[in-house]
Amino acid sequence: MIDPKTLSGFRDYLPATMIPRERIVGCVRDVCRSYGFTPIDTPAVESLDVLLGKGGDESDKLVYRVRSAKAEKEEAGLRFDLTVPFARFAAQYVPQLGTPFKRYATGPVWRGERPGKGRFREFWQCDFDTIGTTSNAADIETALVINDLFAAIGIDRFEVRVNNRLLLNGLLDLYGLSDRAVPLLRSLDKLPKIGRDKVAEEMLKEAAVTADQAARVLDLAETTGSNEEVLARVESFFAGAPNDKAAEGLRRLRELLSVANAAGVPDGRFRIDLSICRGLDYYTGTIYETFLTDLPGIGSVCSGGRYDNLASLYTKQVLPGVGASLGLDRLIAALEEMKHPLLGGATTPADVLVVQFDAARLGDYQRVARLLRAAGVAVEVYPDAKKVGQQLQYAEKRGFRVALIAGSAEFEQGVWKVKDLARREEVAVPEAEVVARIKASR
Amino acid sequence: MIDPKTLSGFRDYLPATMIPRERIVGCVRDVCRSYGFTPIDTPAVESLDVLLGKGGDESDKLVYRVRSAKAEKEEAGLRFDLTVPFARFAAQYVPQLGTPFKRYATGPVWRGERPGKGRFREFWQCDFDTIGTTSNAADIETALVINDLFAAIGIDRFEVRVNNRLLLNGLLDLYGLSDRAVPLLRSLDKLPKIGRDKVAEEMLKEAAVTADQAARVLDLAETTGSNEEVLARVESFFAGAPNDKAAEGLRRLRELLSVANAAGVPDGRFRIDLSICRGLDYYTGTIYETFLTDLPGIGSVCSGGRYDNLASLYTKQVLPGVGASLGLDRLIAALEEMKHPLLGGATTPADVLVVQFDAARLGDYQRVARLLRAAGVAVEVYPDAKKVGQQLQYAEKRGFRVALIAGSAEFEQGVWKVKDLARREEVAVPEAEVVARIKASR
Repeated sequence: MIDPKTLSGFRDYLPATMIPRERIVGCVRDVCRSYGFTPIDTPAVESLDVLLGKGGDESDKLVYRVRSAKAEKEEAGLRFDLTVPFARFAAQYVPQLGTPFKRYATGPVWRGERPGKGRFREFWQCDFDTIGTTSNAADIETALVINDLFAAIGIDRFEVRVNNRLLLNGLLDLYGLSDRAVPLLRSLDKLPKIGRDKVAEEMLKEAAVTADQAARVLDLAETTGSNEEVLARVESFFAGAPNDKAAEGLRRLRELLSVANAAGVPDGRFRIDLSICRGLDYYTGTIYETFLTDLPGIGSVCSGGRYDNLASLYTKQVLPGVGASLGLDRLIAALEEMKHPLLGGATTPADVLVVQFDAARLGDYQRVARLLRAAGVAVEVYPDAKKVGQQLQYAEKRGFRVALIAGSAEFEQGVWKVKDLARREEVAVPEAEVVARIKASR
Repeated sequence: MIDPKTLSGFRDYLPATMIPRERIVGCVRDVCRSYGFTPIDTPAVESLDVLLGKGGDESDKLVYRVRSAKAEKEEAGLRFDLTVPFARFAAQYVPQLGTPFKRYATGPVWRGERPGKGRFREFWQCDFDTIGTTSNAADIETALVINDLFAAIGIDRFEVRVNNRLLLNGLLDLYGLSDRAVPLLRSLDKLPKIGRDKVAEEMLKEAAVTADQAARVLDLAETTGSNEEVLARVESFFAGAPNDKAAEGLRRLRELLSVANAAGVPDGRFRIDLSICRGLDYYTGTIYETFLTDLPGIGSVCSGGRYDNLASLYTKQVLPGVGASLGLDRLIAALEEMKHPLLGGATTPADVLVVQFDAARLGDYQRVARLLRAAGVAVEVYPDAKKVGQQLQYAEKRGFRVALIAGSAEFEQGVWKVKDLARREEVAVPEAEVVARIKASR
């Protein structure tokens, strides 16, 4: 007998988690499509050359190697994110597909890291990007998609924090520190975790700035207040020393707020937060992070930003773009912790169980089930003619809402017993009214 | 510069193929859910012990090995189908989840085989199964799901061929050949490919039967006629020699036809075909294969059957069941060959392109887009204020149906120009009527 178990760091999705996961991925698809993002898919297995493009010990260590029984010419590995495969894809097909090109992709990625609480070696990402344009319209749309996505999932208490790297870059210009941007960003990224003093200390050490310069950068990042107050404060930093980068950053943030307002996004949904910067030097413009109001500590559940060039490793064509990624497993963990109704515990996607009271009547049971299915109601017919009590127990355990029961007495009268399983109420309903009755009771 | 390409045998899904693939997988989900099948997911990576359970050189050769940079204790590989992981899953969780258990699963599987036309090393499967019951109600439902699935996809010219292994087993009992079932089935499975004579020859050689016995088996398999004629002919085989297996096989096929009829499945959708048997000895009862009327030569696009025990390698609990698997890539290849409208070539999932005529009006463009999105119409706003002609060219190339255009003249009058891109007709429509006009023109 072989021990039935998953490998360390890998996990199964049981119905109670898979039903909401499928619903969330469905929302990603629906919302992305509603903005004209098109789906693409790339293989899980890519050549190691493509995956390790940038080199670097870290990705080399985390990439799973793949080989077939035959010796292949090329070494292969499992993708560790959806960005590298998209960069390869864009280099290969954008000449034929044209720009602007807007795509979304959802699927698993693999990282050979030490597993931990909520950290798996195989986990899902949901990415969407617009490439081939530097227009702020695409940056604004990215924020709108994030807003619509969480609304579609059924979460209304969330905030999208927005920043623009150009503001910080402008400030660094002012102080002649532009060459120190990368280490400064890396330190700044740790602000929520290690606090102002430790970040300042690190900036002195890693970016060789003065204590005063570190303080100015931190003052900018820690500016608080209403969106207008924060933007006014940034302007005051540059009073008397006009800077093109900072001006463009301000223009883009202001346009984002005004278009969101014109389009009808609720006030307060987008908040300018100059402290968010994403550690990666890959990002060059707008930055997004998304926090759940009731569980900010879990960190950003949807993040991204604008970049100058997606695929420089694979093509000479410059492909600027903007995009974001939903951390599906982190979001599900958050919803579990918040006891959100989405993770309500039902282990069936169906509403109605048709009890198999009389095996000879299977045709009738499937007939009424098909009527309901045609009306958009999901229905399971119990496969065995077991005792009714046993079938109703099964229905309650799985989380069905309604049971339909009919034996010879009901068939003679042309009715079905419609049993509300939560209220434990039962009424006899003429067959012609069953669909309407069940749809109305939802 | 790294060459941007996929590994041999692997492929990307570009928008024109990915849009229909997503639609088909969506149909699998919707139809399975409408019958109460619940989604589950298992990791792509499993321990080699689990994957190679049965041993056998063939699976050993086709399984991709996976390893991380750290030496792990356990050897790992990529799943080569969705059945082995489901068997492992069932052994692990059915004690807690209970039976009957109905699940569907969709996702990629990997096989290290020589790639060829339409044969890839990574390809998608869509499986659904009902386990923990021997009831014919589950067998019948499997056929109903296959029927509803193809109807949902938008294919109406197809046929589900149904057989039951018990008929052949009954015949072999009659001739005292029960121990020869496996080699006989393997030969019979080749009937459509190599023809009657070669199959008979192989049966003599591989199953050590007489020419007369081979002829009787082939006579049964090649019985043609209406469903009732075929069933009557089977009965005649057993006239005077009653056989329990054959009687149960006949009862199950007859009940399937009568329930399908009662439930309202179109006549002729299910056809008894005694020649289909699936080569695997895993199947023990009802057998399903699905053929496209306009392209039968591509083979079965959805196949499955009843089995006595799913997970004997991983648990002592006996788990009988029935299920089927949609060959997604084969179906897409068939639809491409048939020039089915599903593969219509549009590379955008959106209907409407809002032209960005005046960059200062982005708020208005996103406002009208949100009105349409709220009404279920997918809308892309062009990201740059390029020349209108260029934007319309883009819209036609991607396959948008309608363009919405407005500049200062239109904003003054409160109208939008609605341009039908196929008919090249343009009308000015008051903003309040835009949604209704575009929804009506679909």
